[in-house]
Amino acid sequence: MKLGTYEQEGKWFAGVIENDGIFPVDQLLEGSPNAARIKDMLEIIEFGEEALGWIREGLENGRSRVRPIPPEQVNVLAPIVLPAKNVFCVGRNYIEHVHEGDRANGVAIGAPKKPIFFTKAPTSVIGDGDPIVYPDCTRKLDYECELAVVIGKQGKDIKEEDVYDYIFGYTIINDVTARDLQDEHGQWFKGKSLDTFCPTGPYIVTKDELEWPLNVSLELRVNGELRQSMVTADMIFHIPRIISELSKGMTLEAGDIIATGTGPGCGFGFEPPKFLNVGDVVEIKVEGIGVLQNPVR
Amino acid sequence: MKLGTYEQEGKWFAGVIENDGIFPVDQLLEGSPNAARIKDMLEIIEFGEEALGWIREGLENGRSRVRPIPPEQVNVLAPIVLPAKNVFCVGRNYIEHVHEGDRANGVAIGAPKKPIFFTKAPTSVIGDGDPIVYPDCTRKLDYECELAVVIGKQGKDIKEEDVYDYIFGYTIINDVTARDLQDEHGQWFKGKSLDTFCPTGPYIVTKDELEWPLNVSLELRVNGELRQSMVTADMIFHIPRIISELSKGMTLEAGDIIATGTGPGCGFGFEPPKFLNVGDVVEIKVEGIGVLQNPVR
Repeated sequence: MKLGTYEQEGKWFAGVIENDGIFPVDQLLEGSPNAARIKDMLEIIEFGEEALGWIREGLENGRSRVRPIPPEQVNVLAPIVLPAKNVFCVGRNYIEHVHEGDRANGVAIGAPKKPIFFTKAPTSVIGDGDPIVYPDCTRKLDYECELAVVIGKQGKDIKEEDVYDYIFGYTIINDVTARDLQDEHGQWFKGKSLDTFCPTGPYIVTKDELEWPLNVSLELRVNGELRQSMVTADMIFHIPRIISELSKGMTLEAGDIIATGTGPGCGFGFEPPKFLNVGDVVEIKVEGIGVLQNPVR
Repeated sequence: MKLGTYEQEGKWFAGVIENDGIFPVDQLLEGSPNAARIKDMLEIIEFGEEALGWIREGLENGRSRVRPIPPEQVNVLAPIVLPAKNVFCVGRNYIEHVHEGDRANGVAIGAPKKPIFFTKAPTSVIGDGDPIVYPDCTRKLDYECELAVVIGKQGKDIKEEDVYDYIFGYTIINDVTARDLQDEHGQWFKGKSLDTFCPTGPYIVTKDELEWPLNVSLELRVNGELRQSMVTADMIFHIPRIISELSKGMTLEAGDIIATGTGPGCGFGFEPPKFLNVGDVVEIKVEGIGVLQNPVR
């Protein structure tokens, strides 16, 4: 199932994306005692399989009653409009990206021995189509296409073999980065967390739609030019290891988002660098998941 | 004013701490149309000066009607029980702590040229008296006493001279750190964000109670032994610079918490190191603000 969050005439709603349009979850569940329990995406994720069951039932019974909304009539928001905490991210998780980073920085650090975790502030999250706003404080605006995992239930010290149970689904993240700030501030957080630096979406694909263990291809284009092309099989630390390490001593919760790192082809990896400029359009396509497109303004 | 959050008989409430006990904000405002608007600390902070005015009025009119609760009858929670995003932190912000870090790591990096920002997950926040739980995944549990600033209203690109307007008040944070994880994971986030690693409180002191520009002394003791002793005047980057830099291109919001860094005397700075052990009690005393005490369990 593909689940997203939309705005129409000033109202937000969670919807199911099908070929013929978007089915508002509240309309699918009209008359059901469960309607009030899953008013937004975070609540759908918290109720998990149960909520998906209610929605599937709503689709079966309500398809004749509920008119799907044409996608062009709505404003796509980030699937989780306001995450309850920072977005978790993994850095340097594809060896070719590690190498391009080392080359750009004139060092030879190499592959990490343990996953590198950092975060992006919730205020950086935007949806598909929303502009990435070029801030005054950087001159090196860069992109990073990433597969993101959405956590489905609370867990801590999760074993690698149990990780699948804790996943709700997947989405796409553009881990927009101000390379100069990333360097100048010592830790990566600041250069990764400016407003609009976390395009997310367009929707969440529930885990049952993709094979496990997951292997999908990602492509990022700037103004149509292919810059990044990678498969998640090339991750240094795969999803089970990432979630297992992250949850060591730290409780993960339903609705947590984990961006799993990017491959080679970032702007700073080119000679000369190909940073983003106002007017550019960045498009990320992930096989089986969707397309996330954002202009730079 | 000193404002905290408490639990009594399974109910949470925001309270004003005075010499004769804790005045529940909901009881002070009983009968007022504003009572429903400030049900918890985040709402009090969002309404800011207005809310403080209502509470002051409640104290003037309600002192005879409302019986203060003796502190020993309540369970102290973190002033903001569930922050809406990760806690912002500043690293290496006192030169003597920078030196002890460099010595411990056998490097000579020296003072940062710009503030180093990282975050701690909301799931790490605990209150005064709550145990710091020693996790299995570290052997180097360390403490860091810090003054924390609570943001009072939304702002972005805040000028240094305007920073005072954006402050709601101050509290204390123990930036508990797993030194081994801080190193092994490349970025600091993971080693700083385990459950119970962010003792906060005991309450928030509103900014009017302290002179501006702020200069207070902090002391940290482990089992009564003085380990850290510092004054905030020794910060490399002072509060106006920290908030101004952090807000560049990034919106700060009411209720955001910023821990401003620690001084020398951390466990890893001693030869041999003095890390925390189960059974230890860590106490931080900040002049004009209060005492935050947490056992290690």
